[in-house]
Amino acid sequence: MYMDILQRLGDLRELMTREHLAAFIFSSTDPHQGEYVPDHWKGREWISGFNGSAGTAVVTLESAALWTDSRYFIAAEEQLRGTGFQLMKLKMPGTPTIAEWIGKECGAGAEVALDGWCSSANAVRELIADLRRQGGITLRTNLDPLAQIWRNRPPIPENPITIYPLEYAGETAHDKIARIRKALRERHADGMLMTALDDIAWTLNLRGSDVHCNPVFVSYLLISSKDVTLYINKVKLSPEVVAYLKTEGVGVDDYENVAKGLKDYFEYNILLDPDEVNYVLFKTVTREIVEEESPVKRMKTVKNEREIAGFRSAMLKDGIAMVKFLYWLSGISGKSGLFGLSGETELSISDKLASLRAEQPLYRDISFDTIAGYGEHAAIVHYEPTPETDIPLQPKGMLLLDSGAQYLDGTTDITRTIALGPLTEEEKKVYTLVLKGHIQIELCKFPSGSSGTQIDILARKDMWREGLNYLHGTGHGVGTYLNVHEGPHQFRMEWKPAPLVAGMTITDEPGVYLPGKFGVRIENTLLITPYKETEFGQFLQFESLTLCPIDKTPIVWEMMLPEEIDWLNRYHQRVFDTLSPYLNDEETAWLRDACAEL
Amino acid sequence: MYMDILQRLGDLRELMTREHLAAFIFSSTDPHQGEYVPDHWKGREWISGFNGSAGTAVVTLESAALWTDSRYFIAAEEQLRGTGFQLMKLKMPGTPTIAEWIGKECGAGAEVALDGWCSSANAVRELIADLRRQGGITLRTNLDPLAQIWRNRPPIPENPITIYPLEYAGETAHDKIARIRKALRERHADGMLMTALDDIAWTLNLRGSDVHCNPVFVSYLLISSKDVTLYINKVKLSPEVVAYLKTEGVGVDDYENVAKGLKDYFEYNILLDPDEVNYVLFKTVTREIVEEESPVKRMKTVKNEREIAGFRSAMLKDGIAMVKFLYWLSGISGKSGLFGLSGETELSISDKLASLRAEQPLYRDISFDTIAGYGEHAAIVHYEPTPETDIPLQPKGMLLLDSGAQYLDGTTDITRTIALGPLTEEEKKVYTLVLKGHIQIELCKFPSGSSGTQIDILARKDMWREGLNYLHGTGHGVGTYLNVHEGPHQFRMEWKPAPLVAGMTITDEPGVYLPGKFGVRIENTLLITPYKETEFGQFLQFESLTLCPIDKTPIVWEMMLPEEIDWLNRYHQRVFDTLSPYLNDEETAWLRDACAEL
Repeated sequence: MYMDILQRLGDLRELMTREHLAAFIFSSTDPHQGEYVPDHWKGREWISGFNGSAGTAVVTLESAALWTDSRYFIAAEEQLRGTGFQLMKLKMPGTPTIAEWIGKECGAGAEVALDGWCSSANAVRELIADLRRQGGITLRTNLDPLAQIWRNRPPIPENPITIYPLEYAGETAHDKIARIRKALRERHADGMLMTALDDIAWTLNLRGSDVHCNPVFVSYLLISSKDVTLYINKVKLSPEVVAYLKTEGVGVDDYENVAKGLKDYFEYNILLDPDEVNYVLFKTVTREIVEEESPVKRMKTVKNEREIAGFRSAMLKDGIAMVKFLYWLSGISGKSGLFGLSGETELSISDKLASLRAEQPLYRDISFDTIAGYGEHAAIVHYEPTPETDIPLQPKGMLLLDSGAQYLDGTTDITRTIALGPLTEEEKKVYTLVLKGHIQIELCKFPSGSSGTQIDILARKDMWREGLNYLHGTGHGVGTYLNVHEGPHQFRMEWKPAPLVAGMTITDEPGVYLPGKFGVRIENTLLITPYKETEFGQFLQFESLTLCPIDKTPIVWEMMLPEEIDWLNRYHQRVFDTLSPYLNDEETAWLRDACAEL
Repeated sequence: MYMDILQRLGDLRELMTREHLAAFIFSSTDPHQGEYVPDHWKGREWISGFNGSAGTAVVTLESAALWTDSRYFIAAEEQLRGTGFQLMKLKMPGTPTIAEWIGKECGAGAEVALDGWCSSANAVRELIADLRRQGGITLRTNLDPLAQIWRNRPPIPENPITIYPLEYAGETAHDKIARIRKALRERHADGMLMTALDDIAWTLNLRGSDVHCNPVFVSYLLISSKDVTLYINKVKLSPEVVAYLKTEGVGVDDYENVAKGLKDYFEYNILLDPDEVNYVLFKTVTREIVEEESPVKRMKTVKNEREIAGFRSAMLKDGIAMVKFLYWLSGISGKSGLFGLSGETELSISDKLASLRAEQPLYRDISFDTIAGYGEHAAIVHYEPTPETDIPLQPKGMLLLDSGAQYLDGTTDITRTIALGPLTEEEKKVYTLVLKGHIQIELCKFPSGSSGTQIDILARKDMWREGLNYLHGTGHGVGTYLNVHEGPHQFRMEWKPAPLVAGMTITDEPGVYLPGKFGVRIENTLLITPYKETEFGQFLQFESLTLCPIDKTPIVWEMMLPEEIDWLNRYHQRVFDTLSPYLNDEETAWLRDACAEL
């Protein structure tokens, strides 16, 4: 593999020399600022070999470096070996910023470049300012070297689109567009350009399969006070979809025509979210720009009654599949005996779990690549087993399993950490701290409009007393048969102003990762519901949508508060009552034991 | 009183008519953005009668309104009665913004005014933008009507200045200025204008008495890469101070010359904090402006070893005075008998406490007006008793006592809520919830650099479960023989980006206020100290600097966690061990009982 990388770096440097460029910057995203991107835009992975979801690669004529966050430190270290890329660990002391590093490597006055289609307006504007401070380095944004040097580059996907039934969506596209127009008027905007693929899919009640695990389709949506235009490769549209779009008042134009559409946009102003719209399109606009967060982002996160019913249905099915899987795993894991793990590996159990999910009605796909990390692999936060890294499970230690599915009625995301046999005291203590953190979030009641930054600490406070922490967020929104990561609300240490309101989904997934030893994460997906209204306003609470037992065997009971034990008992009772009607006798017996009160 | 107000409003409206102004806006601050302001600048209080520390008054030709926050709702309601001022409750549903209200009252195209000296650059710029959105209302900023209509206006204070000894300051002015210049260079700034009076006092190791309870003096400080100039009324400077300033490298010019000094400033750029520098001075500058938070703000909050030693000394003395007071109060409160409260009132006990503090070495003043609220008065968050509102204490219910002192070696701030006799179940429950919140902050360990927004919830989570809350922050920094409110770090629900680091002081003061019933607040001043360093970085902890027993009689013990009881026992043991050597036999016996383990 690294030989390929060296060849590609050679081709790139040749092109850079021709273009008089001192460096080229590869972002991790695409013209739609997606987290998962179609292969066509995986330029950063192609040039560096690093396949994590977040990372920026920079190549100079002499050197190369890749910036990524703590989730990927271990994976990146391995994937970059032999490529010449130096790993830059974000948020670690001593790590230079991209601009600082370029300043040092290229010197004042250099010209560097990136593809302005594949970075947001804000990202590019910040980079331009940062580079200017490095003795005046300038940035060129109109070059995509991959068009010249990437042989056999995958095309932009052309998969067919389907209509998302109203019984699951709960609101017509026509009505959503009316709400969006109202939100635009409140922001004194005449129209907007929508570029986020999940926002477009949600608005139009359409789904596609252009992006791995995310049922979205590559397109832009331009809304003015009079028209709505979908910019898309028309080959994707069946006659049925064409007719549907017409009914909902949506016109269609070619994907390549979006820049022309923006140039021709004739109203006084247009709302563009500078964190979402790519730099090239942003610069195309000649009208007044209202720079604000896209109002669709937040509208999409507040689920309506049909969507919530769909989530409950999807979670029931997902819980059944998970319990069938855990029952199967317990049979071979030696927990109920000592007969070993029958040659099962991280990959084989991931396949087993996927096949059990696929048996459920309305199953469509997994919602992200399964993270099945056994033993020290679990300390690699976003470890996804490959044939090269796959290892057999053994009847000891812990398995971290983070997985989810796309059902037509909802998207799921669940993590369990499962003891496969005897554990060390450290494993038990850390497991218990993570579980306490998880439960403290579940128990939280809070004023409507609180931010996830306020609530996040409840998952961490007990581990902080032990000097432990985790550097990822504690939770993210989940889409309705859409992206498993849905913003803007989150639980995290960093400031997230998005207020939490009733109807939002959010995951609760604290963890602790000890490199070379083990990792623990416990995750449910929660729904925000009303709690009580008092003279101090409306208070909200969380309801666990996820239905699956949490392994009790690693728990150090003396570390648990009575309210935490009580929550676990109540949760397990609900899991048992809800799932057992759908299980056979053996599975029910196993579940009864797994959910037994303490 | 309200007759005076009506007269003043008449005079103002006459002037407004002459000047063709539709409205005049009175901010609550002064040219130095102080929280406490010299009487000379108390224009908002003079025009409206409302004396709270925060509030904005707006007067039109026909109407008048005053905006303030929840701390002052009840007090403002009473003080505004009969004045024609309508109370506008900030952060309450339905309350219009100042611009919205002016838009409705004055209509599009109107011209309104404020005194640009008495609002920050950011506040005025925001107001200009908000007013423009109200159909194009314009703002005039060069008029101080008070100069014309305020008869017998108090002059700008001219009190003498003293040198703050190095044994308490711990660092010379010369060294501080060198550190400030280094911080300016890091921000690519050549100089700065300092306008916050506590920043100037801290930088120069000088103290004054121009502002109630705050040992500061009215002045500006202009720092360039070569010179430092103090703009001050020279009558305040003794020959000793003049000589001292010369030694430290600080020149002196008249207070009125600051605008001229800014016009003459010749370097390439200058750092101005737009939240601190007033609009008029901000607009005076002709050089490039570096808009950033004043680096002095944060430098001042991290205490050096001498300052921390001073805090410990001041807290010891304050604890002795508080225990002598509580012992005295217990003797008359009927707690140890049933002989009533001897005619004591909110005001008389405030005087008693002040006199006990005044007996302590290096005592200089109280650090803010004592909040002594008995019974339902305690529900008025910042209630300060006056001869008109004063009520006698009775042997039942609770007394909320929030007080502090200025000692030459440190500033104190403490709140205790004290049972004077039998309590209701509701009083006990609320008291216990507040105490649990207080202790959860005390127990918190956290990564260095965390924000107060993250930690704040620990004080609230238990009361939120009961649908209770308080709308003020949970804590603020405390100065070193300086302002009792010292920013920028805070514990609060709103976002405060200032990172918490070792050496900072911060109060821990959750509360609950039930209007018409009672109020509870429990406050210690904490010091941030190192806890442990692990592979996850440096963790910090809190140490209570305040030494005074917390009333145990209202506690509902079943609601307390073992770790909370344990903290209280350990704290009380430390209080007893530290204070008892300084008390007489009766006081010691009382303290032993108050600190007895549970």
